[in-house]
Amino acid sequence: MMQGHTPIATQINSVSHANDVLVIEWADGKTSRLDAIWLRDHCQMPVSRNPVNGQRLLNVIDIPDDLTIAKVAQLGDDRLEILFLPEKHSSIFTTQWLRDNCYCINAAIDDRSASHKILWQGDSFADSLPISNYTEFTSGSAGKITTLQAFSNYGFALLTGVPCEPGRVLEVIGHFGFNRKTNYGELFEVRTEIDPNNLAYSNLGLGCHTDNPYRDPVPTIQLLHCLSSSAPGGDSILVDGFRAAELLRQENPEHFATLVENWINFRFSDVDADLVSRAPMIETNDLGDVIRVRYNNRSIASVKLPAEKIRAFYAAYRHFGEIIERDSLKIVFRLKPGHVVLFDNTRIMHARTAFSAKGKRHLQGAYADLDGLYSTLNVLKRSA
Amino acid sequence: MMQGHTPIATQINSVSHANDVLVIEWADGKTSRLDAIWLRDHCQMPVSRNPVNGQRLLNVIDIPDDLTIAKVAQLGDDRLEILFLPEKHSSIFTTQWLRDNCYCINAAIDDRSASHKILWQGDSFADSLPISNYTEFTSGSAGKITTLQAFSNYGFALLTGVPCEPGRVLEVIGHFGFNRKTNYGELFEVRTEIDPNNLAYSNLGLGCHTDNPYRDPVPTIQLLHCLSSSAPGGDSILVDGFRAAELLRQENPEHFATLVENWINFRFSDVDADLVSRAPMIETNDLGDVIRVRYNNRSIASVKLPAEKIRAFYAAYRHFGEIIERDSLKIVFRLKPGHVVLFDNTRIMHARTAFSAKGKRHLQGAYADLDGLYSTLNVLKRSA
Repeated sequence: MMQGHTPIATQINSVSHANDVLVIEWADGKTSRLDAIWLRDHCQMPVSRNPVNGQRLLNVIDIPDDLTIAKVAQLGDDRLEILFLPEKHSSIFTTQWLRDNCYCINAAIDDRSASHKILWQGDSFADSLPISNYTEFTSGSAGKITTLQAFSNYGFALLTGVPCEPGRVLEVIGHFGFNRKTNYGELFEVRTEIDPNNLAYSNLGLGCHTDNPYRDPVPTIQLLHCLSSSAPGGDSILVDGFRAAELLRQENPEHFATLVENWINFRFSDVDADLVSRAPMIETNDLGDVIRVRYNNRSIASVKLPAEKIRAFYAAYRHFGEIIERDSLKIVFRLKPGHVVLFDNTRIMHARTAFSAKGKRHLQGAYADLDGLYSTLNVLKRSA
Repeated sequence: MMQGHTPIATQINSVSHANDVLVIEWADGKTSRLDAIWLRDHCQMPVSRNPVNGQRLLNVIDIPDDLTIAKVAQLGDDRLEILFLPEKHSSIFTTQWLRDNCYCINAAIDDRSASHKILWQGDSFADSLPISNYTEFTSGSAGKITTLQAFSNYGFALLTGVPCEPGRVLEVIGHFGFNRKTNYGELFEVRTEIDPNNLAYSNLGLGCHTDNPYRDPVPTIQLLHCLSSSAPGGDSILVDGFRAAELLRQENPEHFATLVENWINFRFSDVDADLVSRAPMIETNDLGDVIRVRYNNRSIASVKLPAEKIRAFYAAYRHFGEIIERDSLKIVFRLKPGHVVLFDNTRIMHARTAFSAKGKRHLQGAYADLDGLYSTLNVLKRSA
């Protein structure tokens, strides 16, 4: 784009206004109808926004009840000046800002809901899994963007070549965000223990689940780092929980609604901890999009719902459980020493096959949070 | 209670069953009607539950479709044995367990929603705020329970006598849970800075708000530790956001519903971070109870809702904003050196009055999470 050239989408054909609304007809045929109070609340002038950090200085309750737009003027071809009464407050907006922020034209932001993600099933990665070498990941922004963008799209990514030394999983987290320490520690050991406080620390197979639904807030990212793996069995399985939830909705909308609308209890209790939560298995946003799933038969506590809803709940829960365990939804792979898998614990279900007590299988796991990862990705993409 | 004596509530008058339901008439006149599938899923036998950690070994999809209750027998006066077909699976439940876990009789667990909390307003603490000495807090379980239970009830608590040394706020967190590190660090300095990246680090007054609504998951506990305070002004203000939300619901149910149903964008952006979320200002559970509030005019990003909802949204938002700033809802106090205030950032709004640039005001803040705090309280109460 040449300097001084205004792109077609931000060229204005006409501007008009009534007392309480500004109407912009854009050159590409689109229309913005912007309410006066929204415009005043979004004023970008230094008196309304701190110029250094962009934070709003204006309290919405200080906007006069009888706010009106008195005058609108075009300043050159890239700005509009709006005069608000009774304050006699003048706001100048760039046309670019108005276009980018107009609620009539632009869709909702990526709130990590299913409609912003690439849903997948077992055969979606026939060519290859989203996998990168740790050296690429750490050596510059391009490699990091590749991995974090795959994570954003698919809900998981794999790294190879992470040194097989205890604690390195925390170093991986440091490259994109922050560790979430819990009662399991900064990291936890996944290997066979005698009388484990959690079945994850046995050699049993584990069905598809999300971690720690009894924790609120749930840890939103999980990492597993393979340090050794000579025991037969112990393959890793991932399922896209968003895809599973959408299948449930397609196959039986009532079952889907039942799991959204009836919240259940989750609990984990041992000598040091007693964690309790009440939350839905499937969580949707205001647009009906799936934003989070929780599924973990081991830690569902006593189901307490109104008596007349128990049967409907179990019908829906069994249906969802059956979808989640369909082979057609699963990807199965083997974590080898030096591999790290990181996945969105609000979306991806994970499982493992049983493994032999003979031979070694030792993973280190840790939790982190999505806000840090997405922030890192957003900052890297600014200059990419 | 004498050994061997069965309390009235767990004495059974009669037991009957049909194919798919068990009916217990309790001695106190209450009735449990327990569906077969619920009973089978909640089987407490070692084959269904790991005896060490209590985790469920049974997958709900493995329960036969044609499950029936074939026989029920009372074993003594404190247990019931149920035979399920076609598995020929026998489950023994104690009557105490059945009574405690029955969905017909028992209310939902404390999910930290408003109906499980003591809502308050400005005059609720006329006698004294929930305040304890740090030595009491750290010297035994009774003192810790006092503070954590006050926090659970009211959403905040105060400690005095915390040594005025940098970093001690992290030590306080270590007594009940885990620090949530963010892009602001393990802790953050609240004092006047030149060109602060966040207005919290200026001497401006701040309206009532919750922290970090642009973060998902939001940090659920905030702590502020006062290290010095000689500057005139800078008083602390707290408002019970649950009370504010309930007032909004009473005064205008449509406004309340508008803020629950229309999610908005929050954002914080500086050179190192770009944090974005989309969430409601008021969040309710499946029973309609308020479970979380988010309110922060500084970090509401461009409001993007369907055009026809913008005016209704602003009417509701202004109403809520006006309630939150009512003096009748506020408690105002001065943090003195050695004070720590800890509050539930999903419930309590905090604010401060402006303070003079002359004199010192230095707080250290840090975030933690509710799951750790409630777990600690639950474990301490087991033996209290």
